[in-house]
Amino acid sequence: MLRGLAAYNRLGNKNPTFKLVACYSTAGQRRQGKIYESASDAVADVKDGSKILFGGFGICGIPEKMIEALKQKGVKNITGVSNNGGVDDCGLGVLIKQKQLSKVIGSYVGENTELVRQYLAGELAVELTPQGTLAEKIRAGGAGIPAFFTPTGYATLVQQGGAPIKYDKNGKVTVSSAAKPVQSFNGRNYVMEESIFADFAFVKAQKADPLGNLIFNKSARNFNAPMCRAAKITVAEVEEIVPVGAISPDEIHVPGIYVKRIFKGTNYNKRVERLRITEPKQNGETAAETSPGQALRERIARRVALEFRDGMYANLGIGIPVLSSNYIPQGMNVMLQSENGILGLGPFPTKDQVDPDLINAGKESVTVMPGAAYFGSDESFAMIRGGHVDLTILGAMEVSATGDLANWMIPGKLVKGMGGAMDLVAAPGTKVIITMEHNARDGSPKILESCSLPLTGKGVIDLIISEKAVFQVEKGVGLTLLEFAEGYTVDDIAACTGAKFSVSPNVKPMAQISV
Amino acid sequence: MLRGLAAYNRLGNKNPTFKLVACYSTAGQRRQGKIYESASDAVADVKDGSKILFGGFGICGIPEKMIEALKQKGVKNITGVSNNGGVDDCGLGVLIKQKQLSKVIGSYVGENTELVRQYLAGELAVELTPQGTLAEKIRAGGAGIPAFFTPTGYATLVQQGGAPIKYDKNGKVTVSSAAKPVQSFNGRNYVMEESIFADFAFVKAQKADPLGNLIFNKSARNFNAPMCRAAKITVAEVEEIVPVGAISPDEIHVPGIYVKRIFKGTNYNKRVERLRITEPKQNGETAAETSPGQALRERIARRVALEFRDGMYANLGIGIPVLSSNYIPQGMNVMLQSENGILGLGPFPTKDQVDPDLINAGKESVTVMPGAAYFGSDESFAMIRGGHVDLTILGAMEVSATGDLANWMIPGKLVKGMGGAMDLVAAPGTKVIITMEHNARDGSPKILESCSLPLTGKGVIDLIISEKAVFQVEKGVGLTLLEFAEGYTVDDIAACTGAKFSVSPNVKPMAQISV
Repeated sequence: MLRGLAAYNRLGNKNPTFKLVACYSTAGQRRQGKIYESASDAVADVKDGSKILFGGFGICGIPEKMIEALKQKGVKNITGVSNNGGVDDCGLGVLIKQKQLSKVIGSYVGENTELVRQYLAGELAVELTPQGTLAEKIRAGGAGIPAFFTPTGYATLVQQGGAPIKYDKNGKVTVSSAAKPVQSFNGRNYVMEESIFADFAFVKAQKADPLGNLIFNKSARNFNAPMCRAAKITVAEVEEIVPVGAISPDEIHVPGIYVKRIFKGTNYNKRVERLRITEPKQNGETAAETSPGQALRERIARRVALEFRDGMYANLGIGIPVLSSNYIPQGMNVMLQSENGILGLGPFPTKDQVDPDLINAGKESVTVMPGAAYFGSDESFAMIRGGHVDLTILGAMEVSATGDLANWMIPGKLVKGMGGAMDLVAAPGTKVIITMEHNARDGSPKILESCSLPLTGKGVIDLIISEKAVFQVEKGVGLTLLEFAEGYTVDDIAACTGAKFSVSPNVKPMAQISV
Repeated sequence: MLRGLAAYNRLGNKNPTFKLVACYSTAGQRRQGKIYESASDAVADVKDGSKILFGGFGICGIPEKMIEALKQKGVKNITGVSNNGGVDDCGLGVLIKQKQLSKVIGSYVGENTELVRQYLAGELAVELTPQGTLAEKIRAGGAGIPAFFTPTGYATLVQQGGAPIKYDKNGKVTVSSAAKPVQSFNGRNYVMEESIFADFAFVKAQKADPLGNLIFNKSARNFNAPMCRAAKITVAEVEEIVPVGAISPDEIHVPGIYVKRIFKGTNYNKRVERLRITEPKQNGETAAETSPGQALRERIARRVALEFRDGMYANLGIGIPVLSSNYIPQGMNVMLQSENGILGLGPFPTKDQVDPDLINAGKESVTVMPGAAYFGSDESFAMIRGGHVDLTILGAMEVSATGDLANWMIPGKLVKGMGGAMDLVAAPGTKVIITMEHNARDGSPKILESCSLPLTGKGVIDLIISEKAVFQVEKGVGLTLLEFAEGYTVDDIAACTGAKFSVSPNVKPMAQISV
């Protein structure tokens, strides 16, 4: 029975000198089955104009050997699909510096100044896509789904069209994004997004077996996992090739069917984009003097912390939201999600604990708590978009009385991308809290009847917490003042707020979690 | 930094006497965090009329303790979403026997005679859904995707509507399926399918930690994995609860965020639906005499085997397709996919190797080859629909000159369901080979100008192999006779074929793989 299959047994020995006969592929390179000798062999048939998926999040889990090989090869006019644009001298930045890319499809490109320069100078097209939509477009491409509906980006530039993709040399927009179809399901509006499928997917995994089965390490799984499935030719560079059978069939992250080529990279130059360290506390150390700005941020954070509940899952944006996690009460369990693929985020590492394969969505070195889980970006945003995260907290440039949020773009100024923000606020069933200073630096209100900046989400906010006030936002009701800070009157709040609001019959002084 | 999170450390000890304080939930049952004491506690708040997802494939990986608890509880009017209907006295069959279900949504219900009786007697609604579409509808429900497009089922009853869902007592159809929207992408037509989200998901996993992180065993992962994500309340029954931190964050199949309740089941009564055993060969044993029918099947299988290529991934239907794997040449590696979640299917087990958690899509006990991988049903059909399986081989009742296939339904006769067949043939890029006896038992042709039976797929066939002939099917060209068996003339083939065909200039005798 199934006799022919027994041939695989020959690969199943524990001796890693594989018995496959070496042969020459169509591209001419020497290889053994799926195993290639080097990065340059594995990318030998990439042609000018190819569309390539690049795994990684920031510079974590990037296929650095293949990027270097593409630089050496000098192919041009590449469309690169990558969540980020790397940094100037690392990751996708290496190819951008060499002007080998004509287009980047990603969610956040702010860390690469050369990319932004080329974009604004009309040398590079940039198609900004919400991070979760990007992950799902890739997942769909691999899964034979040509299009799907998502709540993300509805009633924003992403859906309405008009986002600049390409400028000319004089800074005039020559290509802008098209409007996308909208359809209503169960009384809610959704955007139709089409899938992404590429010529190549270049991914980085921790280990592979000769059949191409892959295992990733920690948060280096990120976009690598869905990208494996969405290209004609997927090439995985790995740190270790183990014999067939050495990986348990229950533990494989990506089955070999998706992977056409593998090679072992050496001397990995893994960097941490934002190294953050927990310094061990010195005996007798006291809290540093806090600045007025710091005190204001702490006040907001201590109010936010009252929203945590035992057993809750939360995603916290950079800044005040993360700060609020300092005030989670002892004994209360709140599990933090990081959209690059972590559930159970822990504190920053000590120097010895730093692992370049373990970063948060802010690209900072982190640790995880016992019981944590790692997953790919497609799973992470399925979790977010599906409303499984109870609470999302993030900052804002402007908010409106109807719950609109603007926090990703100032037209005419630098556009870095929306990252995962549009997905985080779009999930029905997830409570969205906005934390921000009540007024802009020039004193103008940030809470408005309607936002003037391009939206991140329409009607998505549940609660606004500033240093001066707490507003509830309700559909069909608008703003209700629940609390205001000591030293202010309702009239003071009205004077510095650009939208009408009701005052709750139970309005009270702004609460603070006890420390 | 992130101080509150440190509370989780208390759960991270290796001592499984958890420190969480016991408390009473809204439903009144005693529990510790997510851990419930029993199945009856865990399902205490299920109400009449609930929509429930039941994990499992056939009776492999079913939540048997919760099914028993629901039987004891006696809730009625349940809509059960389950790939299969179990068998008469096991799995979902237990609840069907008690008439606790008013509707079943599944892909194949043929193993349960009582289910079919209730369906035809107007006592039970049955909504048949292609297996891959069912898995993707559930995956989408969990991922916040209200609808998606799939090639599966286009131009069949599934898309055109009219499939009987409910009969009255007199056998008249009172509810039939609605037509579904169609849209074209890249020149191909796709069906829009809406997602499934339920009140409860009842799943069976191998082990859990107190945070609800889950690990499945082998092919018992199947529908359990996607179902965890697509319900308001997911309850997992497990064979083992391990301490927090005992499962590596890289090895978790379903993160705890999706799982609200867990309990440990005991005395699992796992059954194998179709026990198949490889008997060790006796010395001097010779091949049994073969019947004429057997010889015919062997002839087809030996022709089919010529289509295998080294390194290929294939999905083989029950019968002649599976038989063809006996003839895969020594030294050629063909990796077999089984749509219930296996890549790298091996031969039937010896008596000692039988594992009820390891079955193929035909519900037979199997083994796997070294380098195999297990995955959930959503991943399995993403693989299939995405065209990653190179070859799919299955049987037919009728085929047409334009490549239409009919192999799942005879109107007025018993309808068992399409299982995964519609998904398997719909994938663009996958070669579809049909193996069948050239003529029906009454001698009538099965190769026709157009099919009279409801279609499994439209224009999906690439090659037809019967005991008499091999036809190529090409879009816009139709049938071309490539080979015919010894003892026949082209005129003979024409006489027993119900469609016109061209004869290849290179037409030759029907080839057979050498044994």
